[in-house]
Amino acid sequence: MSGPTLTFFCIIICASWTEKQAVASPPNVIIMLMDDMGWGDLGVLGQPSRETPNLDAMAAQGMLLPNFYTANPLCSPSRAALLTGRLPVRNGFYTTNGHARNAYTPQEIVGGISQDEILLPQMLKKKGYVSKIVGKWHLGHRAQYLPLKNGFDEWFGAPNCHFGPYNNSGRPNIPVYNNSEMVGRYYEEFKIDRKMGESNLTQIYLEEGLDFIYRQSVAQQPFFLYWAADATHAPVYASRRFLGKSQRGRYGDAVMELDYSVGQILSQLRTLGIENSTFVFFTSDNGAALTSGANESGSNGPFLCGKETTYEGGMREPAIAWWPGHITAGTVNFQLSSIMDLYTTSLSLAGISPVDDRALDGLDLTPVFLNSSHTLQNRPIFYYRGNELMAVRLGQYKAHYWTWTNSWEEFKKGVNFCPGQEIPGVTTHEQKEHTLQPLIFHLGRDPGEKFPISEGHSR
Amino acid sequence: MSGPTLTFFCIIICASWTEKQAVASPPNVIIMLMDDMGWGDLGVLGQPSRETPNLDAMAAQGMLLPNFYTANPLCSPSRAALLTGRLPVRNGFYTTNGHARNAYTPQEIVGGISQDEILLPQMLKKKGYVSKIVGKWHLGHRAQYLPLKNGFDEWFGAPNCHFGPYNNSGRPNIPVYNNSEMVGRYYEEFKIDRKMGESNLTQIYLEEGLDFIYRQSVAQQPFFLYWAADATHAPVYASRRFLGKSQRGRYGDAVMELDYSVGQILSQLRTLGIENSTFVFFTSDNGAALTSGANESGSNGPFLCGKETTYEGGMREPAIAWWPGHITAGTVNFQLSSIMDLYTTSLSLAGISPVDDRALDGLDLTPVFLNSSHTLQNRPIFYYRGNELMAVRLGQYKAHYWTWTNSWEEFKKGVNFCPGQEIPGVTTHEQKEHTLQPLIFHLGRDPGEKFPISEGHSR
Repeated sequence: MSGPTLTFFCIIICASWTEKQAVASPPNVIIMLMDDMGWGDLGVLGQPSRETPNLDAMAAQGMLLPNFYTANPLCSPSRAALLTGRLPVRNGFYTTNGHARNAYTPQEIVGGISQDEILLPQMLKKKGYVSKIVGKWHLGHRAQYLPLKNGFDEWFGAPNCHFGPYNNSGRPNIPVYNNSEMVGRYYEEFKIDRKMGESNLTQIYLEEGLDFIYRQSVAQQPFFLYWAADATHAPVYASRRFLGKSQRGRYGDAVMELDYSVGQILSQLRTLGIENSTFVFFTSDNGAALTSGANESGSNGPFLCGKETTYEGGMREPAIAWWPGHITAGTVNFQLSSIMDLYTTSLSLAGISPVDDRALDGLDLTPVFLNSSHTLQNRPIFYYRGNELMAVRLGQYKAHYWTWTNSWEEFKKGVNFCPGQEIPGVTTHEQKEHTLQPLIFHLGRDPGEKFPISEGHSR
Repeated sequence: MSGPTLTFFCIIICASWTEKQAVASPPNVIIMLMDDMGWGDLGVLGQPSRETPNLDAMAAQGMLLPNFYTANPLCSPSRAALLTGRLPVRNGFYTTNGHARNAYTPQEIVGGISQDEILLPQMLKKKGYVSKIVGKWHLGHRAQYLPLKNGFDEWFGAPNCHFGPYNNSGRPNIPVYNNSEMVGRYYEEFKIDRKMGESNLTQIYLEEGLDFIYRQSVAQQPFFLYWAADATHAPVYASRRFLGKSQRGRYGDAVMELDYSVGQILSQLRTLGIENSTFVFFTSDNGAALTSGANESGSNGPFLCGKETTYEGGMREPAIAWWPGHITAGTVNFQLSSIMDLYTTSLSLAGISPVDDRALDGLDLTPVFLNSSHTLQNRPIFYYRGNELMAVRLGQYKAHYWTWTNSWEEFKKGVNFCPGQEIPGVTTHEQKEHTLQPLIFHLGRDPGEKFPISEGHSR
């Protein structure tokens, strides 16, 4: 064989090998984001009524991350942070119209995710990923802000929470989309029986997810599935076969149905033989909404307060990473980690370099996932409300610069973010500033933030 | 073969078959009773610092019982209830010298377990069991009350808590016994460094347990091991190799060492090939002693208050049953069950009928262990303080007839049984009677006893 011919063959072989590597290696990515589900809602994280055999098994087959945080204790800013890898103060999901006010995205809002942000599905497209969001978007409901304008190829779900029912004149019910097409509205074509708590929405979301996975698997195209079911957000719902099945009432029933769905998705990956090439991450957008009461709110386990607050109960989230053959089964990693890391990590898994024209707050957790003894040192966690930095965690220590639950005015109306919990000087109804001498807790010894460390008690 | 000869052979065969059944079938019984360890201290029950890989594995190989209760929120009455199968108001471990006062057994007490009670090792002797207690006795320190006078064949441990160090004149340190012989005293021959929290007592207790199991295994004699280590009772201690190893400080270090010891004991059973013929149960005597502060107290997970109280945090206990080949691995059973059931169940396993001249409060859980879908219906749980029935649980409902944490006087001195928790009308510092209209909670929906059910909110 002549020199040039050998070179030619080598080029073909090497090129096809490289291409195969590039195509075969980047795993599919599935992010399952729950809505208002608390750290303590999983059996493996201590829920006494243990409704999550599938999630418990997922943890036993993967990695549990007990120190995983969201970026804000409210839906929209957290979701924006997940999809941009950036804190809400950078991606725009904060407000300045009230000190320490979290940026809520109501039905009437005119804004949405900035066109300057580069969302995860937009980045993943560089390596040929096909992306779908199933469920709640919550980053703006006007046409230009919807998922298909922001990198997603497919969508089944709604731009907002399933609040309602509303009247159909001044305030119509929330629309439900199939891609760009509005296919109905909550409470109308997509029924939610508020009295009984019955809706088959989770089953629809499950089917949408399974169908997408199946199609991408057959097409042998890498995919990103953002599965954002919202059954655990008040008004909590479950389909008939799950209603009344848990010991916790409606909320537990919703958890059981979501757990079942997670089990079905993982089982489908195994059936399709793509479990070793699909990275799956399960978490929630913020802590349990304790103010919703016993029948409609979840559990933040041993942590203080819940949704809307920057105590641990508001921002520490259940988190499981699952990737058979890559992540060692049954591991626990105490790495301080954040929902924003899912952006950076997904890019790393796909072999895509993040853009370098902006600050990213997410870190690449790949080394942590692939080697459970690996730690990213000195990584802080920032706890924001609106654009105010309320607290910072570094290692086991958390410093509160501001403490606040909610206003006396709101509290006196019965809105309680910390029912049953009262820690003098910590769960304050006035906004208390501690920037000169932060209130410090050791979260290893005191995960419930009950015992501020004073000079005499530093051990 | 003639009639009489056939009969003769049958007698021999049947007798030897019966004997073999009787000898081979009754399993060894190991009860591991922790001291002041809370429900939330196990990884599998939600401790964020997850110090218990061996206990988590034990649960994965056995049955977890999230609704398991002690008989009283204090050491001595609970231990008396375990060993007699009877409520403290029956076995004598209650006081009448203060309303709702739990019966503590201090070093100076002159009484102890009544000679009229028939303890578990006394009963098990009927089927040839050899019994050993390792660790804390706490049912009377005078000669006639000690373990070897009450059915145990061996003892290594102390009659009381490891409080101290005391002076050696008026108040000597607590003695440590090897069977009937006093072999030293805590803080003297058996060192506990209170400043560093260092002591190798758990290692000694582990060795004593392993040695006993080995000897009985070799002797092929059925045994009962009551392994009552006390490292998680303040002053909390751990041996050098565990100190500083947990994220929780000294308490977590002690948990890690106890977890290690549990792992060693289960591992020894496997090594000796007797894991299928040894029933093991892990639990604790009462809830975590929250008043001991962040460094010396455990976690009651999502439950209210702790030791000394009749809220869930005082009396719901971590509980795992393990018996390979008999108990289905990885099961969760929500049966309401009690430390007193361990008495009745152990007798049932040994094939011994309880005496019929007294009331027993323990039920036989064997059907529950052997068939995880089995339930003993309508079984109440009684919550006593002293001789006052404070509350009753039936199914998911718990009715408080009296509510009380501790006195204002004690509370103002800084003794707080419910740090960080405050539920108006529930965590009361006055003794409040509700017998005419009990305060009712649904523990499935509201495990933290935060939302009393009023007429308008019964769902």
